[in-house]
Amino acid sequence: MTKQVAVILAGCGVFDGSEIYETTLTLLRLDQLGIGYRCFAPDIEQLHVINHATHEVAEGQTRNVLEEAARLARGDISPLSELEADEFDAVIVPGGFGVAKNLSDFATAGDSMDVIEPLKEALAGFREDAKPIGLMCIAPVMAPRLLGEGIAVTVGHDPSVSGAISAMGGLHRSCGVEDIMVDFENRVVSTPAYMLATRISEAATGIFKLVDRIDEMMG
Amino acid sequence: MTKQVAVILAGCGVFDGSEIYETTLTLLRLDQLGIGYRCFAPDIEQLHVINHATHEVAEGQTRNVLEEAARLARGDISPLSELEADEFDAVIVPGGFGVAKNLSDFATAGDSMDVIEPLKEALAGFREDAKPIGLMCIAPVMAPRLLGEGIAVTVGHDPSVSGAISAMGGLHRSCGVEDIMVDFENRVVSTPAYMLATRISEAATGIFKLVDRIDEMMG
Repeated sequence: MTKQVAVILAGCGVFDGSEIYETTLTLLRLDQLGIGYRCFAPDIEQLHVINHATHEVAEGQTRNVLEEAARLARGDISPLSELEADEFDAVIVPGGFGVAKNLSDFATAGDSMDVIEPLKEALAGFREDAKPIGLMCIAPVMAPRLLGEGIAVTVGHDPSVSGAISAMGGLHRSCGVEDIMVDFENRVVSTPAYMLATRISEAATGIFKLVDRIDEMMG
Repeated sequence: MTKQVAVILAGCGVFDGSEIYETTLTLLRLDQLGIGYRCFAPDIEQLHVINHATHEVAEGQTRNVLEEAARLARGDISPLSELEADEFDAVIVPGGFGVAKNLSDFATAGDSMDVIEPLKEALAGFREDAKPIGLMCIAPVMAPRLLGEGIAVTVGHDPSVSGAISAMGGLHRSCGVEDIMVDFENRVVSTPAYMLATRISEAATGIFKLVDRIDEMMG
């Protein structure tokens, strides 16, 4: 049986959704390793829409996270509410501001943040069965609320995000862009990706390592 | 001096813009080879917006090609009208329906199609100076109108698109998804990508070959 990985998306675009390169590189590496995948996203409105050319909020516009994430999946996507951990061997959450705006409210609430309920429910089964969980870029900031306290993750070196992780009961470890942080006990792998990357090839190196490690951990 | 490649985008998403994986994989390979790049897109409205979850036209919605393409470039994009061939060593156009809907009207006009004026103007300098031109997926259908008759390209095996290319005075050659077609005399390289790909790793193989060949041809 081919191993199967669930990939959870938060829209399409670094400033209001999932980071496009991180997602694409994750899917590329999974496919290169012969691992099957399915993409999921919550069927909710985005916090807001950012005009990526001007970096400003596009006033009056609304977009749906599932519909926008479908762009990243070439139309082949399912609602997050349908994700059953039983059907997968691991789960990966790429980064992008959508993680802090749509999957959680870290962007506005800081260390008082919470994570959306369907994501908590979806991840609970993976955690219970000790299936590997991959978190990229800003996504590790969700670890304390999503998976519990005491989990070691990295977002690179960012002092404010790593401070928030600590304040919520997580353990932050510094890490280079081309490397990964593995919490063996909790089965969580993280990589800084575009928290640090200045070039797409740097992000690719860390992301490929993360996917390779998840592959090993699925056994 | 680092070689520089212009990448021309048509939005963000396979059904109404640039194909996301084709674009990302192009940028990845350029960066892995140490080649600089800049992304360009026309500052015009999209033909329409497709809801990528339902595959239906999103009635009443409008989006700007430059603003949406900016998502694929992490915000770092310029209007197509500012593209000067003098500043670049080659140009690449990834695929996606946006090529047939926003950069040209092939989707509605078939072999009576035309290409938007700013794209013609942008490409003229590359053609004049015999700089390499890369066309992926559906983009080679623009070759006869954009670059002139008698240029050999591939879109894989699709009979209707290859028929249209022939009808417009182009030469179509069949090609596998993991391979490229090179017209040495006209300095045009094409690959089928998602005209044929069923897996992202297949598309990557052809796209990496195209970028590698462009790199060789830049000298």
